[in-house]
Amino acid sequence: MSSWAVGALTLEVEHRRAGSDGGATLRVRETGDGREWLRFDCFERSPHWHLDPAGRDEITRLEPGADAFAWTSAELRRDLAGYLTRAGASLAPPPDAELAPALDAAERAMRNPIPDFDAVRPSSRRPSRGEKWSQYPEDVLPLWVADMDFPVAEPIRRVLRFAVDRSDLGYPIHPAPTDIPDLTAERMQRLYGWSFAPSRVEILSDVVQGMYTAVHQFTDPDDGIVVQPPIYPPFFGSVRKTRRRLDENPLVLGANGYEVDADGLRAVGDDRTRALLLCNPHNPSGRAFRREELEAIAEIAIARDWLVVADEIHQDLVWQGFEHVPFASLSPEIEARTITLTAASKAFNIAGLRCAVAIFGSDELKRRFNGLPRHIRGGIGTLGIESLHAAWRHSEPWLDATRAYLEANRAHLVDVVASEFPGIVFHPPEATYLAWLDCRALDLQPSPFRFFLEEAKVALSDGPSFGAGGEGFVRINFATSRAILDEALERMAKALR
Amino acid sequence: MSSWAVGALTLEVEHRRAGSDGGATLRVRETGDGREWLRFDCFERSPHWHLDPAGRDEITRLEPGADAFAWTSAELRRDLAGYLTRAGASLAPPPDAELAPALDAAERAMRNPIPDFDAVRPSSRRPSRGEKWSQYPEDVLPLWVADMDFPVAEPIRRVLRFAVDRSDLGYPIHPAPTDIPDLTAERMQRLYGWSFAPSRVEILSDVVQGMYTAVHQFTDPDDGIVVQPPIYPPFFGSVRKTRRRLDENPLVLGANGYEVDADGLRAVGDDRTRALLLCNPHNPSGRAFRREELEAIAEIAIARDWLVVADEIHQDLVWQGFEHVPFASLSPEIEARTITLTAASKAFNIAGLRCAVAIFGSDELKRRFNGLPRHIRGGIGTLGIESLHAAWRHSEPWLDATRAYLEANRAHLVDVVASEFPGIVFHPPEATYLAWLDCRALDLQPSPFRFFLEEAKVALSDGPSFGAGGEGFVRINFATSRAILDEALERMAKALR
Repeated sequence: MSSWAVGALTLEVEHRRAGSDGGATLRVRETGDGREWLRFDCFERSPHWHLDPAGRDEITRLEPGADAFAWTSAELRRDLAGYLTRAGASLAPPPDAELAPALDAAERAMRNPIPDFDAVRPSSRRPSRGEKWSQYPEDVLPLWVADMDFPVAEPIRRVLRFAVDRSDLGYPIHPAPTDIPDLTAERMQRLYGWSFAPSRVEILSDVVQGMYTAVHQFTDPDDGIVVQPPIYPPFFGSVRKTRRRLDENPLVLGANGYEVDADGLRAVGDDRTRALLLCNPHNPSGRAFRREELEAIAEIAIARDWLVVADEIHQDLVWQGFEHVPFASLSPEIEARTITLTAASKAFNIAGLRCAVAIFGSDELKRRFNGLPRHIRGGIGTLGIESLHAAWRHSEPWLDATRAYLEANRAHLVDVVASEFPGIVFHPPEATYLAWLDCRALDLQPSPFRFFLEEAKVALSDGPSFGAGGEGFVRINFATSRAILDEALERMAKALR
Repeated sequence: MSSWAVGALTLEVEHRRAGSDGGATLRVRETGDGREWLRFDCFERSPHWHLDPAGRDEITRLEPGADAFAWTSAELRRDLAGYLTRAGASLAPPPDAELAPALDAAERAMRNPIPDFDAVRPSSRRPSRGEKWSQYPEDVLPLWVADMDFPVAEPIRRVLRFAVDRSDLGYPIHPAPTDIPDLTAERMQRLYGWSFAPSRVEILSDVVQGMYTAVHQFTDPDDGIVVQPPIYPPFFGSVRKTRRRLDENPLVLGANGYEVDADGLRAVGDDRTRALLLCNPHNPSGRAFRREELEAIAEIAIARDWLVVADEIHQDLVWQGFEHVPFASLSPEIEARTITLTAASKAFNIAGLRCAVAIFGSDELKRRFNGLPRHIRGGIGTLGIESLHAAWRHSEPWLDATRAYLEANRAHLVDVVASEFPGIVFHPPEATYLAWLDCRALDLQPSPFRFFLEEAKVALSDGPSFGAGGEGFVRINFATSRAILDEALERMAKALR
């Protein structure tokens, strides 16, 4: 239950009887004695509202098909005073400036029943068709590919159910007239103070598509592309498959974790080096690069006249004490040479729906990117577009709850590794639900990945797939229930004993 | 209800209490007196089966989570004799060779409750988010973009519901290990006797992506590409947006409808003409080209050394008396220069899910197509892959029923145009749910499209968007309920009076 006190009134949201004939309820109470004057039962089936003049419970049904959450919030914004009078309350409604944000928050809370993260069990995930739970035999716990085991946000499931129930699976409105570009710009401004014109946004299938397309459109075969391993494997693919030259500037692993080797970056490659592929927050290390670190990179990129392609798909998964700084937001000068790639897919757990955005630092960058006709990139699916919208417009309370659970898992992982895995070196991730475990001191044979897969029946991601320097490392995905995480860690510890 | 008599037994499928706690039932009866010996209630909730030894109804529940249809069909194939004995029946089960196809058909029937096509109403479609019903104001009936107004097949909705219910929206198994290539090859062999290696199949986002990519990969800027208007608008886009030269060889409209101008085709363009974009069945004319016509095209394509890109997305929508001949199936020689593009999206009404296939006539064609890295084409969504599978593997009975309804609409349209629209010339489509109405004799101002939109409040597709020769034409989409089709035709007739 969540509540918001605004003057003499309190708005209170409760999720009732999930699964049966229930749903979200919004109550308008008197702040002092808690008396309930109005109640809006925004149930899945037959939503309705109550008022209680002189102790008589009067019930009015909502129109079928209406969005009960939006209707309730709009009605109270329009005429809370009128509703209170009809209910027999002699209370002054709060001023609009106070009421509106409280109603927004209440509407979001109504839309977002919080899942029971602890309820996730292997038996509930095994029937999945996605690769996380299908790749390995039944006796293996999969903590590898970067999907979460949690239920997705209810606003996303709602638009998907709507489409399936109504067989609304035809051609989408062309991306252009949708509000995805506006939504992207508005969200970046709100979260990071980064402003750009919505016209600079382009819809993509996925972030990897954006990276490949940028390399293809802005550089020529045999040009050098800077990549800083260890790194998410498609970074290498986007260089090799387009027949560009891989200019590697490995991150440096010091006592405090991975850092960018600025001197190396200044010197890497040659005058055919044309672009830098940046990953921030960084996968697999979990670094959320500091502003100063990014500024150092930016300075070099400007000095060497590089395009920067910034994969910022993990932007929403930054832990307390750290912050996400969009690379393009550093300065207008660096923005003008940056293509930012991001999506709702990682933080909202919908990678399979295939929808992402590119944000171009200039109209010219967008024009050149689209020199490869959009249709070669393919149509974006209706459900991907709808889900991106539902995620960014309506699902922040789910994200908050998910982050809190992940953050607790992260702290737990830090404790367990310290106490149970003395041979493993581990810098707690500043961002992402991924941890990059340095197992080199254990000398596990034939490799940590194979060792834990075969001896512990735990599937992690294999260090060398993240490039040079990955030998002796594994990546663990802790976006699962505490019970599954603990079982995996126990199996791993037992295998080591 | 459907039934299959096999020897002394009859299999009977019924769909019971749709919407409440029901679903599909398979009965095993004695053919002679109709006595029911076994009953499998493959309900959505608590599927179970009955047997009836000596008049006692014994009920056994199925394991939760199991696919009740697959289980039932597999069990009866495995041990029908044993089940009959347990039920107290002294009947000889039919030989496997007879039983297996009957069980296959019964399983497909169980999976496919047939929708009530007549129940489609504007009020049930207007809340859709797809462009068909969103593009125009509420008082307009939309009979334009090639989506159908009908519910999609239940096997497709089932996989979508499964994914949404389980939040199974993560990374799909990479297309390679799925059985889509095998499924494509098996279906083409079964329907058209066309054989090719599954390794020649590539998964795409959509057919238009395949066309653009083929033009991009197999020709150079300013090369000539042959297009035969009137034609689906993206054909022009794939030439113009890639900066190739449009070599037009218009279809010839004679007394019997559109035909390919073979002499024109022989002479079109010059030695920089490198490819022909073919649409078969043809949109918007509805032609299903005869084998001889296709052979004439093939002969010219070989003589002039062209690549042929064949959009065959309407292959499943060919009406009685006509047949679909895959262009690549004409001969090994023409196959070797043909890329066939098709999908389940048109016939199964799931364009928004974005999944299509390309079938390459040689390994070399596939290699060159994939010279543009796959990741530039983008990842294919989990739900698109799953739905293509559900459509081609399990949904043929839905397709049969849909075709029967469309065929009746087509016949009705022929009658109504003949009786109510004397000024409109119209060659009944041999394929597709689209009809290409020649309104030139009516001289409608400012154009037939604007006239019917403004005067009749019916949105059709505007002739000139299909290229030269489209002036004075509109395309009507008759994949809607008879009631909506009739209302649209009535409005159009009234506007003309």
